[in-house]
Amino acid sequence: NLPLCFPQGILERLDAGEIVIGDGGFVFALEKRGYVKAGPWTPEATVEHPEAVRQLHREFLRAGSNVLQTFTFYASEDKLENRGNYVAEKISCQKVNEAACDIAREVANEGDALVAGGVSQTPSYLSCKDKTEVKAAFRKQLEVFMKKNVDFLIAEYFEHVEEAVWAVEVLKESGKPVAATMCIGPEGDMHGVSPGQCAVQLVKAGASIVGVNCHFDPETSVETVRLMKEGLQAAKLKAHLMCQPLAFHTPDCGKQGFIDLPEFPFGLEPRIATRWDIQKYARKAYDIGVRFIGGCCGFEPYHIRAIAEELAPERGFLPEASEKHGNWGDNLSMHTKPWVRARARKEYWENLKPASGRPYCPCMSKPDGWGVTKGAKELMQQKEATTEQQLKELFQKKKY
Amino acid sequence: NLPLCFPQGILERLDAGEIVIGDGGFVFALEKRGYVKAGPWTPEATVEHPEAVRQLHREFLRAGSNVLQTFTFYASEDKLENRGNYVAEKISCQKVNEAACDIAREVANEGDALVAGGVSQTPSYLSCKDKTEVKAAFRKQLEVFMKKNVDFLIAEYFEHVEEAVWAVEVLKESGKPVAATMCIGPEGDMHGVSPGQCAVQLVKAGASIVGVNCHFDPETSVETVRLMKEGLQAAKLKAHLMCQPLAFHTPDCGKQGFIDLPEFPFGLEPRIATRWDIQKYARKAYDIGVRFIGGCCGFEPYHIRAIAEELAPERGFLPEASEKHGNWGDNLSMHTKPWVRARARKEYWENLKPASGRPYCPCMSKPDGWGVTKGAKELMQQKEATTEQQLKELFQKKKY
Amino acid sequence: NLPLCFPQGILERLDAGEIVIGDGGFVFALEKRGYVKAGPWTPEATVEHPEAVRQLHREFLRAGSNVLQTFTFYASEDKLENRGNYVAEKISCQKVNEAACDIAREVANEGDALVAGGVSQTPSYLSCKDKTEVKAAFRKQLEVFMKKNVDFLIAEYFEHVEEAVWAVEVLKESGKPVAATMCIGPEGDMHGVSPGQCAVQLVKAGASIVGVNCHFDPETSVETVRLMKEGLQAAKLKAHLMCQPLAFHTPDCGKQGFIDLPEFPFGLEPRIATRWDIQKYARKAYDIGVRFIGGCCGFEPYHIRAIAEELAPERGFLPEASEKHGNWGDNLSMHTKPWVRARARKEYWENLKPASGRPYCPCMSKPDGWGVTKGAKELMQQKEATTEQQLKELFQKKKY
Amino acid sequence: NLPLCFPQGILERLDAGEIVIGDGGFVFALEKRGYVKAGPWTPEATVEHPEAVRQLHREFLRAGSNVLQTFTFYASEDKLENRGNYVAEKISCQKVNEAACDIAREVANEGDALVAGGVSQTPSYLSCKDKTEVKAAFRKQLEVFMKKNVDFLIAEYFEHVEEAVWAVEVLKESGKPVAATMCIGPEGDMHGVSPGQCAVQLVKAGASIVGVNCHFDPETSVETVRLMKEGLQAAKLKAHLMCQPLAFHTPDCGKQGFIDLPEFPFGLEPRIATRWDIQKYARKAYDIGVRFIGGCCGFEPYHIRAIAEELAPERGFLPEASEKHGNWGDNLSMHTKPWVRARARKEYWENLKPASGRPYCPCMSKPDGWGVTKGAKELMQQKEATTEQQLKELFQKKKY
Repeated sequence: NLPLCFPQGILERLDAGEIVIGDGGFVFALEKRGYVKAGPWTPEATVEHPEAVRQLHREFLRAGSNVLQTFTFYASEDKLENRGNYVAEKISCQKVNEAACDIAREVANEGDALVAGGVSQTPSYLSCKDKTEVKAAFRKQLEVFMKKNVDFLIAEYFEHVEEAVWAVEVLKESGKPVAATMCIGPEGDMHGVSPGQCAVQLVKAGASIVGVNCHFDPETSVETVRLMKEGLQAAKLKAHLMCQPLAFHTPDCGKQGFIDLPEFPFGLEPRIATRWDIQKYARKAYDIGVRFIGGCCGFEPYHIRAIAEELAPERGFLPEASEKHGNWGDNLSMHTKPWVRARARKEYWENLKPASGRPYCPCMSKPDGWGVTKGAKELMQQKEATTEQQLKELFQKKKY
Repeated sequence: NLPLCFPQGILERLDAGEIVIGDGGFVFALEKRGYVKAGPWTPEATVEHPEAVRQLHREFLRAGSNVLQTFTFYASEDKLENRGNYVAEKISCQKVNEAACDIAREVANEGDALVAGGVSQTPSYLSCKDKTEVKAAFRKQLEVFMKKNVDFLIAEYFEHVEEAVWAVEVLKESGKPVAATMCIGPEGDMHGVSPGQCAVQLVKAGASIVGVNCHFDPETSVETVRLMKEGLQAAKLKAHLMCQPLAFHTPDCGKQGFIDLPEFPFGLEPRIATRWDIQKYARKAYDIGVRFIGGCCGFEPYHIRAIAEELAPERGFLPEASEKHGNWGDNLSMHTKPWVRARARKEYWENLKPASGRPYCPCMSKPDGWGVTKGAKELMQQKEATTEQQLKELFQKKKY
Repeated sequence: NLPLCFPQGILERLDAGEIVIGDGGFVFALEKRGYVKAGPWTPEATVEHPEAVRQLHREFLRAGSNVLQTFTFYASEDKLENRGNYVAEKISCQKVNEAACDIAREVANEGDALVAGGVSQTPSYLSCKDKTEVKAAFRKQLEVFMKKNVDFLIAEYFEHVEEAVWAVEVLKESGKPVAATMCIGPEGDMHGVSPGQCAVQLVKAGASIVGVNCHFDPETSVETVRLMKEGLQAAKLKAHLMCQPLAFHTPDCGKQGFIDLPEFPFGLEPRIATRWDIQKYARKAYDIGVRFIGGCCGFEPYHIRAIAEELAPERGFLPEASEKHGNWGDNLSMHTKPWVRARARKEYWENLKPASGRPYCPCMSKPDGWGVTKGAKELMQQKEATTEQQLKELFQKKKY
Repeated sequence: NLPLCFPQGILERLDAGEIVIGDGGFVFALEKRGYVKAGPWTPEATVEHPEAVRQLHREFLRAGSNVLQTFTFYASEDKLENRGNYVAEKISCQKVNEAACDIAREVANEGDALVAGGVSQTPSYLSCKDKTEVKAAFRKQLEVFMKKNVDFLIAEYFEHVEEAVWAVEVLKESGKPVAATMCIGPEGDMHGVSPGQCAVQLVKAGASIVGVNCHFDPETSVETVRLMKEGLQAAKLKAHLMCQPLAFHTPDCGKQGFIDLPEFPFGLEPRIATRWDIQKYARKAYDIGVRFIGGCCGFEPYHIRAIAEELAPERGFLPEASEKHGNWGDNLSMHTKPWVRARARKEYWENLKPASGRPYCPCMSKPDGWGVTKGAKELMQQKEATTEQQLKELFQKKKY
C-alpha cells in the first residue's frame, strides 16, 4: 500500500502539500520498556540497548511515521555529564549521538522515511545563559548529525524562545532544512513571549517549519500552533506548521504544562489518549493547516497509526501497521461476543466517553508548580503562599 | 544484581518458597505496537515479525520475569483457521507455535528464565463441546511444546472450568508441571462453578499451580485467588497459587470481566494501572500466599518491574531494568524543577489519587454484556430488555 | 383533584391496596432552614419555632404526603437531656412531644392526612441496654401520643433490632397500629442480624408495617426491604412494607450508612437526589410491593411530590403541589430559550447524567467509620490500623 | 446578639463601611417547596400562599439577611400575562406586587431589615425593544413600591445592559436609592458589552450600587464584579459593589450561564454549593471590596447564614440562626459516633473534596445553548451545526 517512492526532502514534500507524519516520544515509551530513567531522561540507551531503540523506531515507521527523529533528546554534552553520574560506565556524548543516527538511518532505510537530527534545551542555558557556550553545545551535536548526514534538523522542546533561536542559528549553519518546536501553550514561553512572537522569531532565525511539541495535550497544542500561524500571518512571514503534542489529556495544567501536574511523571496513566482522541487531533491539526503532524511523550506506535488512518483519505494510503487494525474498530466484527461485535463502528467509538474505573479519583488536578495558570496562581497565593515564596527564592538563584 | 543461577524448575522454585514473577500480556502490548489485531487476537506475529515478539520478551525478562510464556495465545489450529482469513499468506498453526517456542527460548537463555508453553480456550469448545475434538486441539499445540522442550506448561484464559480441566488432562500427558488459570472473577465460571470449585477440579485434574489470569483488575483477581485457596483448603488439597490479572481498573465490570465494559478494547486507557497500583497488587497477592505473580492484558514491562521492586526485600535483589528506575520515584531527585524533585518519595506516590484529565467522562461504566453483575442485570431488565432479549436469543443458538 | 375523603386508618388503607405516601426528613430540612442543630439533631423547634415546623408539614401535605409524622425524632427524655444543655431555657420532653402532636394534627386537618407519632433509638440503649429503662423512655413519649390521639405509631431509626422490638412492644400497648423501620442496609443491623430476621422479629413483636428508613440511598433501601420481604415470606409471616430512604446517593457507604461518609453531614450536597431519581425509586419500591413509600433525611417537599407524580397513574390523582409542576418537565415548554424548551420531555430527564460541576472532587468516598463494608474494612486494616484500633478501643467501652 | 438598632438606609450603611447581607433566591427555593412553577418562574405565590413566602423571608432574616427583597421577580404585567394562563384564577400584577411588599415588610419588622422592591427583565424588551413600553412596565411596579414605601430599589437579572439602564432610569424617578445587578459573567452582556462598561452605564444612569446576580457560580460572579470595579475605576466613577450569585457550581457554563447547562433546571442538585463553599465566596467577595453580599438561585437560608458566619469577625455579631449551628462544624463534637466527632474542626471541612456518589456521571457538562463558550461553540460548529443553525434561525426571528 505504500507509495512506490518518496525520495524527496522534507521541504519538497511539505511544499508539495503532502502530509508528513512524525513519530512519537521516545523517553516516555522507553521508560516504560525499561531503558530510560525518568528524571534525567537521557538517551544513553542508543549505546546500551540499541535493539530496544531500533525496535521502537521500527514500530513508528510501520505505524506510518515519515520522519524518524534520532534519539538524541537531552543528548547535549552538558546534560549527559550533569545527569550522567548514574550511568555505570561513562558514555560519551559523541557516542550517544552517533549511535542514535546510525540506528535511525538503519530503520529509515527499511522503509522510506527521513532522518531528522534533533537538539533540545540545555542545562547550560538554564544555569548561565551564555550564548557562546550554549551554541557550542548544539554545535557539538550538529557535527555528529553532519557526519552522519541526517536529512534535516529539528530544534525541539524549548521553553525559552531565546534559546530556541540560538539553536536554530546553529543548525542553520549546516545548510540543511531546520524545524523548530517549542514546548509551550497558548500563554507563550517562560519569559512571556506569545506563541505568535515565538514563531516570528524562529522563522526570522531561519526555521522553515515551526510549531510546538510536548508539555500540552493535543487540543491545547493545536490551539497554540494556530496562534503561531496568526502571528506569522500578521508579520507576513511564511513557514510550514508542525505539531507534536502529548498523548495525555491536560486541561488542568498551567503554563509549564504537564510537568506541573501532580501526576507527572508516574501517575499519568488515566490521562492517556485513546486512538480516537488522536484521530480527532489529527483532523483538527489538518484543518488549521498543520502538515507535519506527529506526537511526543505518551505517543505509542498505535497513536501514530491513528494519525495515518485519520488522514488516509487525504493521503491515499494506509500505513503498514493498519494490516493489524480496522477502520474505527471494524476488526471487532470478528469478535466472539455479540455485544463486542456491536462496537465495530465509528459512531460507537467517536462518542464513547471512556470511564476511568477510578471512582475515588478526581477528573482534574491542581498544578503545583510555578508556571501555573492565573486561576491556579491566585489559589496558590491565597493558600500556599509559603511554598510559592520558597519556590520563588529558589527561582531567583537559578534562571527560572 | 541477579542471583548467580537458578537452574531449577518451576516446582522446585515454588516448593522452596521462592517468589516467581510472570510476564505481561502479549496481545495487548503488541496490538499497541502494531503487530496483533484486536478482535481475532491471534499470535501470527511470531512468524511475521519475530523481532517484535523477541523484543517484548526481552523487556519482560529485563523487568524481572522469571517465566517467559510462549506467545501462543489463541494459537490452536481451530482459532487460527477460524480467524485466519485476514492473514495475507496462510501461516500454519505449527509454524506459529514453533516460532513462539524458539523466540521465548532464545530470550530466556539471555537471562535465566523458564519457558512455559501455553494453551488457551478454543472455539471448538464454544461451538460444539466435543471433548475429543477440543483435546485434539490442545494436543496439537502440546506436540510442539514437547518437541521444543519447554520447561513447563500453562493452561490459561478459560471461562469454563470444564474446558480447562480437559486442557490440564492433555498437558499432564507430557509429564511436565502444569499450571492452570481461569479468566474468572469471584462469581466463578460461565457455568456458575465457584472459584473454589474450579480450583479443586483443576488440581484434581493434575495442575500443580492454579489461579486466575486476565478479565479482572488486580484487586478482584487477588480476591478470586483467595476464594480458590479457601476452596482448596476446604477440600484438603494442596497447590501453588498464581495470579496474572489485567493492568486495568475494572471495579464496574460484570461476570465476564472487562470484555463487557463499553471501553473494551479501544477505550481502556483511563483505566491503566500505575506502577504504584501494581506495587500494591504485588503486596496483596504475596500477603495472601500467591507466589507466582505476573500480569496479563495491559501489563507493560514497567508493571512487571513494579512487582519485582515491591518484592525486592523478600527476594533480595532487583531486576536489571531497575537500573533505570528509582525506588518509589527517588530518581526524580535529579529533576530540574524543584516541585518535581519534591515528588521523589514514597508517601507522595502511594497517596496520589491520579486525575483523569477527562472532565466530561464518568468514573464507572455500565457493562453491556451478558455476564453482568446482579445489579447491572436488574438495570438491564428494566431498561434494556429488548437488547438483552436479542442477546439471549443469540446465546441460545450458541453455547453462551 | 384530591379524593373526596379518606377517613380510613393506615391499615384499612394498606389492606385495601392503596399506596400511602409518607413525608420527608425533618431534621435535615429544618437544619438548612435554621431551626435544628446538626450533631444533637433534637426537635425543640416544635416549641421554639412552631411556625417553621408547621410550614414544613404543610409543604409535605401539599406535595402529597398521606401521613404526617410528629416531629419527635430524638425526642426521648434521655436524648433531650443528654444533648439539651445548649438550649437556652430548658424545654421539657413532654412539651416538645405535645407541641409536635398539635402542629402535625393542625396541618393534617388542612388536608386529609393521618398523624403518626414517632419514637426513635435512645441513648439509654446505647449506654446501658437496660430493657426497663429503655422501654420507660418510649412509654413516656407514647403517653403524649395517646393523650393527643395520634392515628398510629412509628418506631423508626433503629440500628439494633433488639431495641426496635422493645419499642414495638411498648407502642403495641396502645392498641394502635404500629409501623417499624430500621436504619439498616442489606448487611443488617449493628449486631449482624439480617434484614429478613429483623423483619421477622419486628412482626412477631407486633408491627403491622415493617421496612427501613434513613442511612442509605433509595436503591439500597429498596433492596433491603426486598430482603425483609423474603425473610417474612420464608417465615410465612405477613406485613405491609414501608420504605423511607435518604435523598442522597450513597453507593460508597458502609454498614452504618451515610454517617460513615466523610461528607456527613455538611458536605452531602453533591449527593442530593434529583426529582427524577426519586421517581425511579418510587417505581422500584412499588414494583417490589412496598405500599408505604416516603423519605427521610434529604427529602424536600419536591421529592415527595415526585413519588406522588410517579405513582399518579396507579392512584388516579396528583397532589396539590403538582399545580406548580409539569409531568417530566413539560412546564419548560413555556421557557424563553428554545434549547430549554427542548428539555420538556421525559426521555431528556430520564437519561440525563447530571454533572457535579466539581472537577477536583471524586465520585466516591472511603467511609471512615466502624461499620464499613468488607472491602473498605480490608483497606482500613492495611492502612489505617491505628485509627481503627483506637476506634475499637472506644467501642469496647461503649456499646458500639 | 443582634445590634440594638440599625435604622439607617442602605446607602448610609454602605457608606459607613458596613457589610450588608442580602437574601437568597426565592423562585428556586419555593419551586422545591411547591409554590413556584419552573419555566414561567412567576411569583403569584405572594397572593396564593403568602404563608410560604412569609416563612422563607423569615428564614433568611433569621439567617442574617439585612435586606429582604420583595418577591416580585418576573412580576411585570407583561410577564404575568404572558405566562399567566396556567394560573387558575387570574391574579393581577398589582395584587402580586402589593402582597409581596406587605409580606416583606411584615417580616422585616420582625427583625430590623430593609425592604427592597425589585424589578427584573421583561418579555417586552425581548420581543420589541420599545423603550416607552418597557419603561411603562417598570413604572407600573414602581408605583406599588412607592405606595408601599419600600426602603430602596433593586433592578436585577438583566441580560442586556440597555434594558437595565432603562430600569434604573425609571426607578430613579422615585428618589430612592437604586441598586442594579446584571446576570452576566466575565464575557459581559448578551450584546457583548463588557462587565466594566455595564457598570459604567448603570452608574451613569443613576445606580448607587452595582454588581451581578444569578446565572454564574460564586467564583465567576466575584470575578465579574471585580471586572466591574476595574471598569468603574478606569472611568473614575464611584459605586458600591453587590454580588448575589448562584449557589451552584458552574465552571462549565457558557455566556448565558447555568441556563445553558443540560442540568438546568431539574438536575442541578450535584452542583449545589456547601456552606463551606459559600464561606469561601463571602471571604473572596469581601476581599475584593464587595459589601452587599447575598445570593440568588440555589441559596437556601443556611447559605446566607454561612455568609454571616464567615464575616462575623468583621461584623462583630452572629445571626440568630447560628444558635443552631456551630463554627465550622464544632457542634459535631456532640455526635454519638467518635469518627463524626472528629469532623468538628475547620481544617476538615475546608479541605474536604465532597464526592458526588454518582460514579456514572461526569464532572462537567457541555452547554447546549447559544451563549456558549468559544470552545463549546467550536464543538457545536463541528458536530451540531444543524441544531445551532436551527437555533440561529429562531434567534433571528426573535431578539436573541
